[in-house]
Amino acid sequence: MAKKILISDPTLRDGNHAVRHQLSRDSFIAYCQAAEAAGVPIVEVGHGNGLGASSLLVGECSLSDEDILSTARQHLQRSLLGIHVIPGFCTIRKDLSRAVELGVDLFRIAAHCTEADITDRHIAYAREAGKQAWGVLMMSHMASPAVLLEEAKKMESYGAEAIVIMDSAGAYFPADVHERISTLVQGLNIPVGFHGHNNLGMAIINSVTAVEAGASIIDGTIRGFGAGAGNTQLEVLVAVFERLGFETGIDLYKILDAADVAEKTFNPVAPSISPLSIVSGLAGVFSGFAKPVARAAADYQVDARDIFFGLGKRNAVAGQESLIIEVARELAAAKG
Amino acid sequence: MAKKILISDPTLRDGNHAVRHQLSRDSFIAYCQAAEAAGVPIVEVGHGNGLGASSLLVGECSLSDEDILSTARQHLQRSLLGIHVIPGFCTIRKDLSRAVELGVDLFRIAAHCTEADITDRHIAYAREAGKQAWGVLMMSHMASPAVLLEEAKKMESYGAEAIVIMDSAGAYFPADVHERISTLVQGLNIPVGFHGHNNLGMAIINSVTAVEAGASIIDGTIRGFGAGAGNTQLEVLVAVFERLGFETGIDLYKILDAADVAEKTFNPVAPSISPLSIVSGLAGVFSGFAKPVARAAADYQVDARDIFFGLGKRNAVAGQESLIIEVARELAAAKG
Repeated sequence: MAKKILISDPTLRDGNHAVRHQLSRDSFIAYCQAAEAAGVPIVEVGHGNGLGASSLLVGECSLSDEDILSTARQHLQRSLLGIHVIPGFCTIRKDLSRAVELGVDLFRIAAHCTEADITDRHIAYAREAGKQAWGVLMMSHMASPAVLLEEAKKMESYGAEAIVIMDSAGAYFPADVHERISTLVQGLNIPVGFHGHNNLGMAIINSVTAVEAGASIIDGTIRGFGAGAGNTQLEVLVAVFERLGFETGIDLYKILDAADVAEKTFNPVAPSISPLSIVSGLAGVFSGFAKPVARAAADYQVDARDIFFGLGKRNAVAGQESLIIEVARELAAAKG
Repeated sequence: MAKKILISDPTLRDGNHAVRHQLSRDSFIAYCQAAEAAGVPIVEVGHGNGLGASSLLVGECSLSDEDILSTARQHLQRSLLGIHVIPGFCTIRKDLSRAVELGVDLFRIAAHCTEADITDRHIAYAREAGKQAWGVLMMSHMASPAVLLEEAKKMESYGAEAIVIMDSAGAYFPADVHERISTLVQGLNIPVGFHGHNNLGMAIINSVTAVEAGASIIDGTIRGFGAGAGNTQLEVLVAVFERLGFETGIDLYKILDAADVAEKTFNPVAPSISPLSIVSGLAGVFSGFAKPVARAAADYQVDARDIFFGLGKRNAVAGQESLIIEVARELAAAKG
């Protein structure tokens, strides 16, 4: 019997990173229709950083959450409507409750890989509202398999119905994925998923490896649209899974058509693996740091790549942008 | 002790496919300098289909072979100058002898995977001229490991000093590569190499797998510039090999700089995995067929993807473009 894989598609959320959260209403509509026609089970939408994240600091979205969710809801009948939720950006009273009203089906509640504790109330709220809730552990390469399991178990105890680990920096090699996914599959009683990025050209094989290690949920975006080097390219994934005999329920030709729709509707060219993406993957640092790193490199006359590796050694995570200046200053001082 | 890998870089040859053989003299010079500075051991140049291939039928090159080779020779001191040679396009008397005079170091004599016989005189000529000669088996997924070994042994008997197998259609999965490379490594007395394409997102992992199976030569192009979905992306490969402890002798930062040089100097955007590339990878058909297939699809009002899969079932290879019409006609007839 063919192994069944549940595909969750954050093109209209992670892909928003690639256009500084400026995806147009037409893009949302065109892609929702194309994804639904192809049989994509879950379509995730919103600001790149999720519900409630639109702000001057992390980037203002061209459309409000309200607007995005009601537009998407209108154009998704068979596909579930999903959102990314980071407690801190997303409040329960204002954002989560409204998303429930607007008909979101799946709440993917995310935290840095060692901070699962912050997700308890959000997960509980979504479940009590009768919605699906998953736990998502971001930057998961920064935690050992044992620690990841411990954090995932917390989310399971809060009511999460699945756990997805993200390779946010595109730092994993297949062996890393295998070790972590199999640890989670063995230790949890809920499905396990994987969300890849392509900084080291490993997104597809890492996703295949995740399935071989027992994962049953895989994230992918059309044309790879996403932050930095991009995500696991969904239509390639569908082709590869079909060849390997994994059942996704997605129609190959129609998902290829969806790639053409996105290529025509979205503004940017498809992501590619830039030199700085490679360094961010090797250093294990989120590629969203690229811009402030470039600025600091220019200000302090040091090499942006050295800053990335310096951030990697310090285990820098999003929100710690001040470390960039610290590293740049040290490099400048060491030079002369 | 770190495993040593010899990197051969056909950016200025396979990359020429991506611009219909119109790479400029400035591009040749800029990239030769950047590759040499990074310590790339072999730089392969020329028309996409190799020495003597420039023609109205397969595409005219903006520069003559003579011009390309003398330009490249002038800017390569440490890196070896390599060329791709397909007997039929390349004559011994006119093309090969002149390339020897112009100082080419390495002749990569190529044939379809079951046609090694046609390479005997070209290999012998290059060896007798005191040059290095390798045998290259193209579209290697179309032959079983046993047949590939037989063909490679012929090339070895002609004097080839290494054998490279090409995944011209980007059709391989890692297990396919492992099986073929290990068969060759066990059965031959000369080094074995792998040349990947990225149609199914497997170019990097296939190259890693080739090394694990015993290959010691790997091809890669900067930014992945190459036909269709592109080649194995060289600077990603260097990063990944460095992480795995394989020694390439290439400087990571300088090869990342070379990527920036190419991005600025070459005309096209970096290749990405288009819907038709995926189909060509799945079907195991050379992506160079894309244009005539699109034309036939329009003429006969059938789906280009169906034509690709039809060609795959017929084991179509380059030169058999008439099969495209045959398949298109059959599909149109079946539609009614």
